[in-house]
Amino acid sequence: TVDGASLWNDILETARFGATPKGGIRRLTLTEEDRQVRDWFAAACRALGCSVSHDSMGNQFARREGADPSLPPITMGSHLDTQPTGGKFDGIVGVLGGLAVLRALRESGHETRHPIEVINWTNEEGARFAPAMLASGVFAGVFTEAEALDKTDRAGVRFGDALAGIGYRGPEPCGRHPIAAYFELHIEQGPILEAEGKTIGVVTGVQAIRWYEVTVTGRDSHAGSTPMTMRADALLAAARMIEAVNAVGLAHGPDAVATVGLVENRPNSRNVVPGEVFLTIDLRDPDDAVVGRMEDALRERIADIAAASGVRADFARVWDAPAVHFDPACIEAVRQAAESFGYPARRIVSGAGHDAAYLARVAPTTMIFVPCAGGLSHNEAESAERGDVAAGANVLLRAVLDADRR
Amino acid sequence: TVDGASLWNDILETARFGATPKGGIRRLTLTEEDRQVRDWFAAACRALGCSVSHDSMGNQFARREGADPSLPPITMGSHLDTQPTGGKFDGIVGVLGGLAVLRALRESGHETRHPIEVINWTNEEGARFAPAMLASGVFAGVFTEAEALDKTDRAGVRFGDALAGIGYRGPEPCGRHPIAAYFELHIEQGPILEAEGKTIGVVTGVQAIRWYEVTVTGRDSHAGSTPMTMRADALLAAARMIEAVNAVGLAHGPDAVATVGLVENRPNSRNVVPGEVFLTIDLRDPDDAVVGRMEDALRERIADIAAASGVRADFARVWDAPAVHFDPACIEAVRQAAESFGYPARRIVSGAGHDAAYLARVAPTTMIFVPCAGGLSHNEAESAERGDVAAGANVLLRAVLDADRR
Ligand SMILES: NC(=O)NCCC(=O)O
Ligand SMILES: NC(=O)NCCC(=O)O
Repeated sequence: TVDGASLWNDILETARFGATPKGGIRRLTLTEEDRQVRDWFAAACRALGCSVSHDSMGNQFARREGADPSLPPITMGSHLDTQPTGGKFDGIVGVLGGLAVLRALRESGHETRHPIEVINWTNEEGARFAPAMLASGVFAGVFTEAEALDKTDRAGVRFGDALAGIGYRGPEPCGRHPIAAYFELHIEQGPILEAEGKTIGVVTGVQAIRWYEVTVTGRDSHAGSTPMTMRADALLAAARMIEAVNAVGLAHGPDAVATVGLVENRPNSRNVVPGEVFLTIDLRDPDDAVVGRMEDALRERIADIAAASGVRADFARVWDAPAVHFDPACIEAVRQAAESFGYPARRIVSGAGHDAAYLARVAPTTMIFVPCAGGLSHNEAESAERGDVAAGANVLLRAVLDADRR
Repeated sequence: TVDGASLWNDILETARFGATPKGGIRRLTLTEEDRQVRDWFAAACRALGCSVSHDSMGNQFARREGADPSLPPITMGSHLDTQPTGGKFDGIVGVLGGLAVLRALRESGHETRHPIEVINWTNEEGARFAPAMLASGVFAGVFTEAEALDKTDRAGVRFGDALAGIGYRGPEPCGRHPIAAYFELHIEQGPILEAEGKTIGVVTGVQAIRWYEVTVTGRDSHAGSTPMTMRADALLAAARMIEAVNAVGLAHGPDAVATVGLVENRPNSRNVVPGEVFLTIDLRDPDDAVVGRMEDALRERIADIAAASGVRADFARVWDAPAVHFDPACIEAVRQAAESFGYPARRIVSGAGHDAAYLARVAPTTMIFVPCAGGLSHNEAESAERGDVAAGANVLLRAVLDADRR
């Protein structure tokens, strides 16, 4: 088993990089805070005798050699970046849980056949650079490296420049790295495990996700001297679109979700009727066909609202991540590991996207979920139980050892 | 009459301070661009033989002495700050029109009885520091200087610090400055004069304005794993409030206007259900009682929306500027001046707030409007005819000379 106390200590220790007054973390990818936690992670892995490298997308690989150098590594991982007001567990548990596995292997002196690697993927959150899971997506061949390096944040900074800026653009081309299996430990980020009193979620897949960008163009005018009937109010039209997105989510069954998370209003001055609004839409459902129907409904509603509101709406799909089904053998290894420890477990589909969703395209992959309080995530108050996190890392260790024997 | 070509030239010349690619101006108050235009204005007035000073709120006074040093000055003025994406005329025409009057007096060698002053008021727009007309409000005793200096912009910078930062905090206490009369030339910023083919608006007053701030508090959560029914989506509630503000404007007669101009969404990330939204509301009508009824309706609607959306809404009135009626003698002087030139004119109530609305509390005051294309203002495409601007400045000159004789 892993050393749960060390793991918990690592979580608290790294939480200082980007700590917020409300007890959360603001560690946007490729910022100074991200550089600090990367440096900490590399040093911690080296202290356990691992070699540490990073590739051309900034993904970090901490490697413990196995008995057979010809075998590809069995890998674990997740991400150390956070939302603008994120918590201490999302992603972090998966990377530091991998570190706990490395520590357990070293302390027990166990020699694996395969090399064992822990990976910290760049820009999983998608909060700074859209889409999410960008660097694992390049690794899996979903995006080209060139397009990823050219993504810009909302301030116009290029991904490639930010990566070079923190000194993490490595020489190894991203993706030329065969992998025997990938296991990702993560908090559930939803309410199911806690509600049902389960310690372990045996993750069978990830639901479909699509992202959109809408630019609404009206006409800036004076809030005091422009009659109500002479306005082309981009914010009023955007408000109607936000309501429509919510209605589309509600109308497509209990699993569908639809969210406007980001809005930029221009010129954003108290006495100016807004002339332009940029907003984003996130649609999800476990069934790709349902997401397709949601998109169709939304396209129609947005066009209708624009016409009725006297504005123009430019609607673009910027990300399409179909539903993912994980590897049956990996899933079964996780189920058996949980059972062997006597942890209450259930099968579950992930509502959140994860690097595992892209890794599943290039390696046998699955995930292990542990509960988080109230199902709350992407919130500074996000929390998880120390015992649950340790249980998840134990399952991770056993699933990795099982894969090493196969 | 004034030299219309020089006036037009001054307008184009100063438009380079903060010029935007779309032909507008971004010259937020107390920024480097504001400092540049203030320096230009002071130098231009000194070149005409005027003394130039600024008070403790940064208001600039350019003074041409009159024959009788015991008389208070007859003043003209407006503002040189702009909206984030403002035009080349709003405010600027009033200050540079005053400069054109000074030039005409100097070139004709006319000696007035009163000193003549042109004033550039600080932070008229209210785009950087709320409320609008802040420094003329201090001048008129509506706000204390201490409260004004403590206002902060949305980035948290204090007015007082920004003022000192550009070197325009003067020694003379704001307001200790008796004024014989105040005339403000301005573009209409609305569609009426143009539609009716009038050159001059004889402004009888300014409609009532109230500003509000609403903070909507929900709960940040994950856009992928939080079911629609478990959300406390602050942005969805804010969208409903934006629709309600528009409905309140439409429901209170043809003169009422209601606008949400500024929205800040937090954390503003594509995959986070928003937990907090800050928004502003601007309500106006020529009748104070109508604005009061709009406020009552809005308070009720916002409370209902918050309750139905499962969020909290904190609603605060941050500015109350009652309707203003200008001085009958000044209004008549403007009407006669327009008539004497043969300019088509009509009486009009201002939809926009102006420094004149506060000056009216401490001195006989009125305004002169000239048309702007399509009634468009607070827009980079704002424009006015050179001949109309010159006509307005001619009326300004004659109204000032008339007041000097009275
Ligand atoms: N795990 C996680 O929160 N990932 C962010 C990507 C998404 O699901 O939006
Ligand atoms: N003239 C002008 O646009 N003033 C800004 C104050 C307001 O009316 O909101």
